[in-house]
Parts: sequence; structure tokens; C-alpha cells
Amino acid sequence: MRKILILNGPNLNLTGTRQPDIYGSATMGQCVEELQKSFDGRLTIEERQSNHEGDIIDALQNAKSDGFDGVVLNAGGYSHTSVAIRDAITAAGVPVVEVHISNIYAREEFRRHSVISPVCMGVVAGFGLKSYELALMSFI
Amino acid sequence: MRKILILNGPNLNLTGTRQPDIYGSATMGQCVEELQKSFDGRLTIEERQSNHEGDIIDALQNAKSDGFDGVVLNAGGYSHTSVAIRDAITAAGVPVVEVHISNIYAREEFRRHSVISPVCMGVVAGFGLKSYELALMSFI
Amino acid sequence: MRKILILNGPNLNLTGTRQPDIYGSATMGQCVEELQKSFDGRLTIEERQSNHEGDIIDALQNAKSDGFDGVVLNAGGYSHTSVAIRDAITAAGVPVVEVHISNIYAREEFRRHSVISPVCMGVVAGFGLKSYELALMSFI
Amino acid sequence: MRKILILNGPNLNLTGTRQPDIYGSATMGQCVEELQKSFDGRLTIEERQSNHEGDIIDALQNAKSDGFDGVVLNAGGYSHTSVAIRDAITAAGVPVVEVHISNIYAREEFRRHSVISPVCMGVVAGFGLKSYELALMSFI
Amino acid sequence: MRKILILNGPNLNLTGTRQPDIYGSATMGQCVEELQKSFDGRLTIEERQSNHEGDIIDALQNAKSDGFDGVVLNAGGYSHTSVAIRDAITAAGVPVVEVHISNIYAREEFRRHSVISPVCMGVVAGFGLKSYELALMSFI
Amino acid sequence: MRKILILNGPNLNLTGTRQPDIYGSATMGQCVEELQKSFDGRLTIEERQSNHEGDIIDALQNAKSDGFDGVVLNAGGYSHTSVAIRDAITAAGVPVVEVHISNIYAREEFRRHSVISPVCMGVVAGFGLKSYELALMSFI
Amino acid sequence: MRKILILNGPNLNLTGTRQPDIYGSATMGQCVEELQKSFDGRLTIEERQSNHEGDIIDALQNAKSDGFDGVVLNAGGYSHTSVAIRDAITAAGVPVVEVHISNIYAREEFRRHSVISPVCMGVVAGFGLKSYELALMSFI
Amino acid sequence: MRKILILNGPNLNLTGTRQPDIYGSATMGQCVEELQKSFDGRLTIEERQSNHEGDIIDALQNAKSDGFDGVVLNAGGYSHTSVAIRDAITAAGVPVVEVHISNIYAREEFRRHSVISPVCMGVVAGFGLKSYELALMSFI
Amino acid sequence: MRKILILNGPNLNLTGTRQPDIYGSATMGQCVEELQKSFDGRLTIEERQSNHEGDIIDALQNAKSDGFDGVVLNAGGYSHTSVAIRDAITAAGVPVVEVHISNIYAREEFRRHSVISPVCMGVVAGFGLKSYELALMSFI
Amino acid sequence: MRKILILNGPNLNLTGTRQPDIYGSATMGQCVEELQKSFDGRLTIEERQSNHEGDIIDALQNAKSDGFDGVVLNAGGYSHTSVAIRDAITAAGVPVVEVHISNIYAREEFRRHSVISPVCMGVVAGFGLKSYELALMSFI
Amino acid sequence: MRKILILNGPNLNLTGTRQPDIYGSATMGQCVEELQKSFDGRLTIEERQSNHEGDIIDALQNAKSDGFDGVVLNAGGYSHTSVAIRDAITAAGVPVVEVHISNIYAREEFRRHSVISPVCMGVVAGFGLKSYELALMSFI
Amino acid sequence: MRKILILNGPNLNLTGTRQPDIYGSATMGQCVEELQKSFDGRLTIEERQSNHEGDIIDALQNAKSDGFDGVVLNAGGYSHTSVAIRDAITAAGVPVVEVHISNIYAREEFRRHSVISPVCMGVVAGFGLKSYELALMSFI
Repeated sequence: MRKILILNGPNLNLTGTRQPDIYGSATMGQCVEELQKSFDGRLTIEERQSNHEGDIIDALQNAKSDGFDGVVLNAGGYSHTSVAIRDAITAAGVPVVEVHISNIYAREEFRRHSVISPVCMGVVAGFGLKSYELALMSFI
Repeated sequence: MRKILILNGPNLNLTGTRQPDIYGSATMGQCVEELQKSFDGRLTIEERQSNHEGDIIDALQNAKSDGFDGVVLNAGGYSHTSVAIRDAITAAGVPVVEVHISNIYAREEFRRHSVISPVCMGVVAGFGLKSYELALMSFI
Repeated sequence: MRKILILNGPNLNLTGTRQPDIYGSATMGQCVEELQKSFDGRLTIEERQSNHEGDIIDALQNAKSDGFDGVVLNAGGYSHTSVAIRDAITAAGVPVVEVHISNIYAREEFRRHSVISPVCMGVVAGFGLKSYELALMSFI
Repeated sequence: MRKILILNGPNLNLTGTRQPDIYGSATMGQCVEELQKSFDGRLTIEERQSNHEGDIIDALQNAKSDGFDGVVLNAGGYSHTSVAIRDAITAAGVPVVEVHISNIYAREEFRRHSVISPVCMGVVAGFGLKSYELALMSFI
Repeated sequence: MRKILILNGPNLNLTGTRQPDIYGSATMGQCVEELQKSFDGRLTIEERQSNHEGDIIDALQNAKSDGFDGVVLNAGGYSHTSVAIRDAITAAGVPVVEVHISNIYAREEFRRHSVISPVCMGVVAGFGLKSYELALMSFI
Repeated sequence: MRKILILNGPNLNLTGTRQPDIYGSATMGQCVEELQKSFDGRLTIEERQSNHEGDIIDALQNAKSDGFDGVVLNAGGYSHTSVAIRDAITAAGVPVVEVHISNIYAREEFRRHSVISPVCMGVVAGFGLKSYELALMSFI
Repeated sequence: MRKILILNGPNLNLTGTRQPDIYGSATMGQCVEELQKSFDGRLTIEERQSNHEGDIIDALQNAKSDGFDGVVLNAGGYSHTSVAIRDAITAAGVPVVEVHISNIYAREEFRRHSVISPVCMGVVAGFGLKSYELALMSFI
Repeated sequence: MRKILILNGPNLNLTGTRQPDIYGSATMGQCVEELQKSFDGRLTIEERQSNHEGDIIDALQNAKSDGFDGVVLNAGGYSHTSVAIRDAITAAGVPVVEVHISNIYAREEFRRHSVISPVCMGVVAGFGLKSYELALMSFI
Repeated sequence: MRKILILNGPNLNLTGTRQPDIYGSATMGQCVEELQKSFDGRLTIEERQSNHEGDIIDALQNAKSDGFDGVVLNAGGYSHTSVAIRDAITAAGVPVVEVHISNIYAREEFRRHSVISPVCMGVVAGFGLKSYELALMSFI
Repeated sequence: MRKILILNGPNLNLTGTRQPDIYGSATMGQCVEELQKSFDGRLTIEERQSNHEGDIIDALQNAKSDGFDGVVLNAGGYSHTSVAIRDAITAAGVPVVEVHISNIYAREEFRRHSVISPVCMGVVAGFGLKSYELALMSFI
Repeated sequence: MRKILILNGPNLNLTGTRQPDIYGSATMGQCVEELQKSFDGRLTIEERQSNHEGDIIDALQNAKSDGFDGVVLNAGGYSHTSVAIRDAITAAGVPVVEVHISNIYAREEFRRHSVISPVCMGVVAGFGLKSYELALMSFI
Repeated sequence: MRKILILNGPNLNLTGTRQPDIYGSATMGQCVEELQKSFDGRLTIEERQSNHEGDIIDALQNAKSDGFDGVVLNAGGYSHTSVAIRDAITAAGVPVVEVHISNIYAREEFRRHSVISPVCMGVVAGFGLKSYELALMSFI
């Protein structure tokens, strides 16, 4: 059974309270719990979050040695600017799927371009917290 | 049980033979068949394909009256230029999910921007034919 | 008495039901009927619509031989991208007036530029269905 | 009966002598006279012209208190640059229709974009002095 | 005690009635009165307004000889385009502080860039009419 | 003996009557007849034309199974925008040569860039109808 | 009495020694001390500084629960690039005022645009350390 | 003997005191006096200055009827933005020569482009007040 | 019988050894020899090559007086930047055809634009050394 | 008496025969002769021309040691691209005046920008061969 | 003997295992060891690495007080975006040399521009791990 | 022992006298002499300089047959524009290292981009004449 890391970037710890019209009113904790139930017996899921770009890079570098077979990454605001995270994805050694809660292509101009998409296996965006579920499906 | 239209645009009838390193070697027929099995009892699926932009628009306009509850749209090369298809999506009256077989954000510059993404419910790209499966999952 | 073709492009068959806050709630059928009454004895009016770019080009190429003295063209979403329609206007041999129901210059960036304006006689935009009336006035 | 202000910007006092291949050989005086005849009993028309950007703004600010129900505005060369006139239109309190004698979209690049279009009710361009007639029609 | 000129550009005479959601419902007259009270004994304040770009330039050129020790300038729509006002600020011989009622960086793209900021002492924007108060504070 | 398809896009059916200063006064019919004579015994030539983008794509997809060894493609106005035709060229399985009657690089800015050039074997432009002859020469 | 957080980003700990021609020769410590005296009885002021983007985000997320009624934010070099800080400002739940010591609009091109301005209440820039005083004034 | 109008735009009344490192320390009055001496018997020279864009336009429109055979125009800051002055030059009916005291191409980016150059007979820039002399030479 | 100059620019003397995957393995000498045989009795052909931009210009200026009726020009790397060669083509007095061995439109961005194309009679690119043959055909 | 070098770049040896509608019908030889007469006793004039960029650089480097007090430079097509000539001007040690026969700002986009203007003393353009005369005047 | 800090940014701890075709197969540890031997008696060398942008800034701020005479900085992915690191370099008080293992100018577009280059003493890029050796040479 | 060509482009013969604040006051002759001493027994060094682009290309083409094992190239002003030199580097058959005396990334915008960097082995810039020494080190 594959073990997948859900890696959440800046401000995603606020999901549920932050702009609920965009990000919904369920918390990330509730979301992860549901996903664990839903994928029970099919995937082992673990979630980590940090507001620090360097922590995201550290986690990506360690994903493989920490026993993960893949990463579902929502890099939040770093998605649009971080070459350093992009390089860490390339170096991760396990497949990384990019995920966004909102449809980033329907929002402000600067949110429509992600510098990490080209080095991810695939992209899922716009389905609310269900985006995580679809992304995890890709590992089955 | 919801009925979903898989609507494929130009050149997707060639899937399986066209650039298999990018699009894979399974045909669209095989793909649809597998999806029908996989979603049996959960979704009713129908596929249509055309190389004509106008046909895609016609199909989107008629999707609701044809009894569909949603559309999984791979507009192929029209994704990057067609304002007319974008307008038809807005007018469709049923949710439309954008799908791409390849990771369009990792390809040529002109393929990295889709004019229809902002009016779709969400986007799934880069998982090969599995992209269709993830997109359909969003309707369950 | 001059005979004018009102040529409508993609999604204009939905006028009246599609985004009524932008396009109004009268249908194109009602609009044409009113115009025919209003211009009775002054202009002969005929309307055609297609979602197919090629059909618009065919109609423009045939306008003169079909006996039309001018065309009122609402090319919809094709207005912003179609070099092929632009070339057909240049070749039409009868004057073509560009019309838009909404004020395209007040909408999304990509809608503010029309590739066909430079080869039309003039442009009328933003007056709702009344735009057609003003455009027809230019032929009297 | 509605009272409409035709407000002409810089160099439009030269209409009839300036570049007649573009602007025609009728003077603005003759044009206004004809319009007054043509709309007699339907609209009251008054024309003002100034080469001063500030005068255009003053006139727009005063249009309502001066008893006008609408403005037909040809801002000439200021159309392409004046944020200040744009703001005055927004503040005018009566509908403003933008008018151009020539088809500005068929001319030099810098003439193809008008900063005031997005805040006007609609735009009429390219019909020679007849553009004013079509614009006035929109108030009936 | 320093004497400061509050110099207001186009449409600022309408403050209080124009787009009150953006500019508030207090008039400029009330604002100046309050400021005079608030800075009583600390600064002498005088306000001038014009819709004419040339008047703004004249006032800036004369500020020093008119006995002013500084200028609080809200150039309105001219802020975004006027090289001529920029040059007059450079030549003014007294410090000029740029002020905006609204947060111009949160509005339309063309309002986010001011050509006069680089030659002003500082910029205050977004605090409603309180922006004038903060700007005046910088002279104490 | 190789069999070559001359595939003409929108408005090329009007060659001979449309803008003769740019496209010449010979019709496409006369042109093809002359080419057939000229290449008699060396190439078998067949010409097809459509104003519909989808028809061009269909023809490219079928070129090989229809027995053609190569395509001389003048995509007209679609050359500058159609990603879908570009993809069909890549998938055609036979070499495609791009042809233009006029020197597109000497015309309007939007005509100077062709999205299909990068996937064609080569490009011939600017020699009038003789461009077709040169393009066919490349297959000998 | 309101409690305000002065939140300083990268390199602002060096104020007083770093480029004194641009940033002045007073240290941030001296500045805060003076501000505390100046606003004594009117505002409670606390200052924090970090060179770490993640720390700035953490502080913004915690501002409300830490009892602050507002934030005066000088994000330093992160102002020009950090979407993540922008998102944290939006989520902060207390008003945030952007502050810059120097007139950023008069410096290098890349310093003239701040990605956080659109989500701040207002912006104060160019008054040296006095910028902090003006910004604090906005909370009274 | 030809009569030439030297027409000076905004801030040029300050020549001699404004940024003497760029514009020199001679006043415009001294400059004109010298020019009148220098061209005595060869050209009649008259100078006018205004900070108002509309005044520049008025003067250009009236140049011919005021008996001038040519205009030497230094439009100052309006050179870079004024389409309205450009149109007035085109309509002037007498040749207009563009003049700049400083080498505008060696200054800030926004000063390197003049929208009026394309409709002037020629351009002289960078020779200090001697630029006026060279420009006048072109009328002999 | 017409006499044609094949004029080759920088690095084309290395054809056959330089990047044979792009430029082929035949030398320019062999190519010219074959062309001379192939066009024997139809065209007189002479080839010149230089790495010096000035030499290319000299040769174009002298082409007519040297008795040439046309030029087949491969300007190599100068094609993308040389305004001076462009001007020499315009002044040559004989028709010039632009030729490229590789399909420049399928290579690096900076190679896709040629500044000389607009002043050449036509362009042939992408057929290997056969491009020269097609270009010469245009002179028959 | 000062000695001035007129330094002409590519294609200027053709003046008089090349595009006489733009460059006039007098030859450069005639022009220089007239200038020598006209400035007799005031300036010593010598002209050199080359189509080679390197020759222009050599001449600029040697101008001072060759006894010249200034250079009137028409760099022709190299004006728009040559950083190397720009550097040579900076290093010349004598003032260099840029000259153009035609009004380059009224021509093709790529001709409107000169990379050498910022390092020249001044610019004269658009007066036909008289441009040289005006430029020489600046040395008196 | 000078003491130099080698400061490595994100992902450089993976050197030797990450994309060995680009970065080589030697580890950073081996590299530093070799450098220490090679510069023994000439320079004292110490290496630090962090994935955290803030750590890089802290290290630069402390370099001088930590006794370093210079810094060899490979900021990795932060090189292309970090204004904050740029500011820290300016404030460091010791010379900083920028180093890249790969030739960044030969890679993806976004890697070709470094925001820190303008404030570094010099740049060395493309020599593999030997880049560090060359950079250290500059301190001797 | 490897033999290396130092190849210097336009204006580098003036090193020592030209802009000594940027390029230093040592001449290229002195520099080469020192390098020859410094690398004595390790590398054989020869220097050539030309202001002619074609000469640089010739030298690069001949480097290998002239017995050189590598080239240290300072292409001066040609670095920023010459596709032809770039192609010659690709064809040289020996490694080429790009060198700049000044830190080009800290100078004018147009100097910050080199078209030859992507095809060089590596780049060294900003260390004064010491840049040559570092570049030569790379060949040991």
C-alpha cells in the first residue's frame, strides 16, 4: 500500500476560516480525516503544513527517505514564484501532483501561472477540497 | 444516476496512434469502454468527438437538453484560442470540467494557457487517459 | 430598397436566455421581427446564425451573389481571433458593419480587441439589441 | 423631449478642412444643423467644442445641471489618454455615448484604444459625420 | 508656522457625491474645514482645485512665490499620465507630497502607476479623506 | 509517382478575384491545371479547398489513408492562429509543406507569424501562385 | 486603547547602518522608542522583525489572536514578490497598513511595484522613519 | 521674409532657473532676443508659451491665419503623450519642426519617445538653447 | 539566360561540417556544383560567401552592375538583426530571394524572425540545400 | 578653425539613387561639396563612408588622433542595433552629433529607436541632406 | 590570510545526486574538501547551506562580524527572485561573488536572469564545481 | 601544454584609456603580458583583437586549425546582438569561455543580456582584467 504525503504551503492551515467563499468552510483537519477514511486500505496518508518556503523544500527533499511514494502538493502562494520549490520537486525522486482548492485560472492574473506545474506529474485545480481526493486517486 | 458527456475536440480521435510518447497508446474507444466499466452504476457516460469548433459549441449548447448533468471537455487545440467555446461553456447550464491528457503546462509556451479554464468548474491535466477518470470522479 | 443580411455568429442563437444581465432578455427572433417592422419600406432584412466559423465565411463570400447590399455582422467570440473572417469581409464586395450587443470595451481584456474592426465600414457596440438598429440605420 | 449635448474635443472645430479624406468635407456646423433638422421634434440638440481637456471635464460635470439628458462625446485625441475625462464621464450622472467620425480601429495603433469606452454606454465609430446621427438615435 | 497648499486636480470638486463607495460622502469643503481645525496653530492650509492640467502646473510653478512651504497634491486622473505636471513638481522649489483618497494600487491596472510619484517627497494613498491629514502631518 | 494533396484554406477559392494586387488575377482552378501539366509524369496532384477549419483537419488526418505522399498546405487565415491544424499536421504521417501566395512577412503584423511553420517540413512564401510550384518541387 | 503591531521584514534590523543615504541613520530601536513616546496614551505599540518570509506570515496569522487591532507592515524586499504574505494579509482579520521608509516609486524598476498594496488598507512611503508615524496616525 | 512662431509648452517659461544642469542658465527671453538678432533680415521670429495643452493646440490651429510660415515647437512634457497636439500639427497647414533643449534620448525611458515626431518635418534635440537656432536654420 | 548570384553569409562556408543534423553533410561547394548542372542552360549561377556584414552589403550594392539579374540570399545569422543588409536589399535594383537551409521557424525564438523577409521577393526555408534549388526556380 | 569628420555608414554611398522619395536625388558627393562651400572659412570638412561596422568603429577611435574636433555621424542601419559603435562614440574623445536624412521617427517601428542617440551630443533628423548642415552648425 | 564563506542556497545540499548531467556527480562535501586543499595557505574556507531564504539573509548580515572577508554565494533558485537577498548583499559590508555550477544562461528562460548579479562584485557560471574555485581565485 | 586564444572584440584595444572607472587603467598589452607570466609553463597564450564582427567570426572558425585548444572570448558590444558570432562559437570545435571586464549585469539594460552565453562553456564577468585570469584557470 502506497504512502502519500499531503504537503500544504502558506496559509492553508487557515482553510475553513479564510475566505470561505473561495476555499470552503471545512478545515484541513476535517478534510484529511475524510480522505483517510475514503482511501482506507488503498493509500496511507499523512499531512504536513508550513508557512516557510524552506520547510516545503526540506519536506520534498526528505519525502523519499521518509518512506513516501508520492506527494500531493498545494504550495499555495509559493506556487507562483518559487524556483527553489520547483528545483526540490525535480530532485524529490517521487512523483509530485500539484493541487489547488480554487480554480486558480479564474482568479487574479498573477495566480494563473504556476512555476511548479511543468515539473509536476499533473495538476488538479478548482474542485474545492475534493481536489485532494482527485489527486490522491491518481496514485491508485 | 448522473449522465455525463465526454466531449473531445480536434485530433483526439487519433489518441493511441498520435505521438504515443505524449498521449499514450490506448485508443479513446478503449479508454471510454474502461471508464464505463469503472463508473458502472455510478455515472452514465457518453463520448462525442469532432474536429469542428462549431460542433463543440453545438454540443455544449445542447448538453442540457440532451439530458446531460455535466460535461468533461477536452477541447484539444481549441482550448488555447476559442473565445466562442468559452462563451458556450458559460451558456451551457451544466458544469463543465476541463481535461487534458498531457501536462499542458510542461509543453510549448502557447499550450500553457487555456482560455476556457476560467469558466470551467475545475481543471485536470497531465495524468494521461487517467485524467478523464479523475474528472469524472468530480461528478460523484 | 436595399437588402441587408444580419449575420450572427456563435452563441447568438441563445440571446434572451444567455447571461440576460449582459445580453438582455429578448430573443434574437423577437429582435429581428421588430427590426423588420421598424425598417419596413426602407430596408429588406434577413437573419442567419451559425456556430461554425466556416459558415460565417461562406455567408460573407456569398452575400453579394445572394443579392445583399450590405451585412450587419455580429461575429461573437470569433470577432477577437478570426483572421479568416477578416479576410472574408475584405473579399465580400459589399460593406460590412460590425455590431456588438454589449460594450465589449468594458468587459474582459480579451474581448476588447476585435480583429475584424479594421476592415469593417464602422462599429456599433454597447446598446443592447438596439445596436442592430443603429447599424441598419447606417445603410439608409 | 430629451435634450442632448454633442460635446466635441480637440481639432473637431476643423472638421471639413482637416484631412478631408478621413473626416469628410462637411463642417461640424453643417453637420449639427442637419442633425437638428433630422431629429426635430424628437431630440433637442446643442453642440460645444473645446481644445482644452479641462473644458471637456467641466462640460461633463455640468451636463446634468445644465439640463441635458445625455451626452454624445467625441473626445478626439483625448480619447486615447485621458483618465481625467474618463472619471468625469463616470461622475456625469447622465448616459454618455462615445462617437468617432473615422473608424479608429483601422488607423494607427495608438488610436485603436480608447480609455473612455469602458465607462460609456456604447460606442459608434467609422460612419463619418453619420456617426453622430446613429449615436443620437440611441437616445430615442 | 508653515503654509501648505492642498492642490486638487480633476473631478475632486465632486468628492462627496462622486462614487461615494470609493471616495466617501464628505465633501472636499468639509474635509478642508476639518483639517484647518485639526492643524490650527500648527499649519496654515489653503485649498485650490481645477480640472485643467495647465492650472495645476501654473499653481505648482507659483507655489513658492505665493508663500507656500509645501504642497499636498492630489492630481487625480492626471497622476497617471502627466509628464508636464511631473516636470512642474521638479521645478516647484518646495516639497510636494502625493495623496490619493482611494488605494489606487487596488483599482484598475491603469490607476496603479503614477508618473509623478518618483519626483514627490512621499506618497500617501488609501485612507479616504484622512490621507490628506497624514500627508499634512509630514510637514510638521 | 508520388501523389500530392494541395490543401487550400479559407478564402482561397476566391483567388483571382480577391485583392488581385496581392493575390494575382489567375484563379486557383487555372493554377492547378497548369501545375498538373507542368508536373505531368512526375507528380499526381489533387486540390481541395474549404473555409472550415475542421475540414482542413479532417483532410490532414485522412491524407495518408487517401493515398497521398505529401501535402502542400495553404491554411490561409488559419495559419496564424490554429493550434488544432498544427496538431493535425504533426499527426498526418506524411510531410506537409506550408505555402503562401503573398510574402506574409511583408504584410500586417498579425500575418507575419504562422503557428504551423514549426511543424511543417518547410515554408515557401511570396512568389504568387508560383509558390505552389516551388513547394511541389520539394517532393521530387 | 488600540494595540498595533509594527512588523518589519528582511534587512530592516540593519536600519541606521545600511545605506544611510536612503534609510537614514537612526536605528529601528530608536525609532520605535520615539513612536512609543509620541503615541503614548493613544496607541500601544510593539515591534517585531524577521528576515524569514514564513515568520512574517506566522505573525500576520497570529496578529488578531495576539490581541493586535492593526498591523503596520514594512515587508522590505518581500513586498515586491510575496504572494504568500499577500494571502496572509487578506486572512489576518485586522487592518494592515503598508509602509516604506524610502520612496520606492523613485527607485529601481523592480521596487516600484508591491504585490501586497492591493490588499492593504493604505500605503505610506517615502518619509523616512516618519513613514511609521504617519501610518500609526491612520489607526487613531 | 518668412515669419516663424517659436511655440513653447509647459515649464519652458522656467528655462534658466529650472534644472540648469539640464536646461542651461540662460532664460527663454534672452534666448529669443539672441535668435532675433542672429536671424535679423532672414526670419521674423515670435515666441509664445503656455502650460495649457489646449493653448498649444489653439496656437497651432491659428498659426497659418496669424501669418506664420512655420512653427518651431518645443511641446515639453506634452511631447510624450499628446495625441491632440499631434493632430493639431497635422492640421496646421504650415511645417512644424520639433525641438528639445536636452537630448531626450539620453534621459528617462518615458522621455525617449515623442508622439509628435512622426508628424513634424524634422527633429532637433540636445544642443541646449542652440537647438532653437538649428531648427530655425531649417526654414532658410 | 539570367545570371543569378547565390550570396551566402556568416558560417555558411562551414556547411557540411557544422551541425550536420541541422545543415546536412554536403558542402556548399558540392551544392553549387549540382545546382550549376541542374540549371545548366537555364540560369548562370555564381556563389560568394563572407563572414563580414559589410561584404554582404557591398555585394548587394554591386549585384546589378556586376551583371546579375537576381540574388538568392542566405544571410545566416545576420538575417535576424541587420537593418543595414535590409536597406541594401531595397537598394539592390534586382529581385532578392531569401533562403534558409533549416526551417528557422522551428528553431530558437530569436531565429524565427528575419528582418530582411519584408523586403525580399519571397522566402524559402527548411528544405536543406534543396532550398537553394527552389529559390533558383523562382527566377525561371 | 575646427575640422569636422562627416562619417557615413552603410548604403549612404547610394544617396541620390536609393529611394529618392525618402533620401532625395542629390548625391552625397554634391552634398559634401555644397557644405564645404557653405562652411568655407568656418569649418574644415572631410567625409568618409563605409558599409562595414568595424570601419565606422575604427574611424571613431581614430578621429581625435586624425585631428578632428568633432564628428557628424550618420550610422545608417547600424544606428538601430550597434552597441559596438555606441561604445566607440563614448571612447572617441570628441563630440559626436547624430544625423539622419529622413525623419526616422516617422518610419518603420524598428527605425524609430537609435541605440547611439544617448551617447551623442545631439540629434538632427528629417531635413533631408540639410540635416548635415544643421548638424555642422552646432560646431560653430 | 583571508577567510571566505561559501554560502549555498536551496537544493545545493543535493549536489552529486540531483540531476548529475547538469550538476555533476561530486558532492558538495567533496568539493569543499578539495577547495580547502587547493587553497591551503592562501585562503581559509568555510561552507554553509540552507534551503531557507531567511537563513541566507541572516548569514550575509553576519558574514562580516563572523570574521569573513568575502562571500562566494550560490543562491540557487533564490537567485532569480529574491530582492531580500539582494538587499542583504548590499548591506553585507564584504564583497560577494555570485557563482553557479551550471551555465544558467543556457537553461530555461526564468533561470537566465539573476536579480542579485547587479550587486555582486562579479559572476562565475557554467564550470561545474570548478566555478567555486574560479570565484575563490578572485579573492587572492 | 594547452594553447589558448584570447579573442577581444570592438573597443577592447582602448582598454586602459577608455572609461577607466569601468575598465581600469591597465592596457590590454600589459594584461596579456602579465597573464603570460602568470600561466608560464601551464598555458600558451596568444591575443588578437578586432573591431570587425567578421574578423571575430573568422578567428573562431580558424581557432582549431590554428592549433588552439580553447578560446577566451570578450566579444565586447557584439556580445549583445551577434547571432553570427554565436553560430561561429557553436561551430568552433573548441571550448569557448565568455569574459567581461565589467559586471555587465550591473550596467545598462541592453548590456545585461548576452546572446552568446548559451553556447559558451561558461561565463566570467565583473573582475576587471582579472576576469581573463579566472577564465584561463578554467582550462587547467
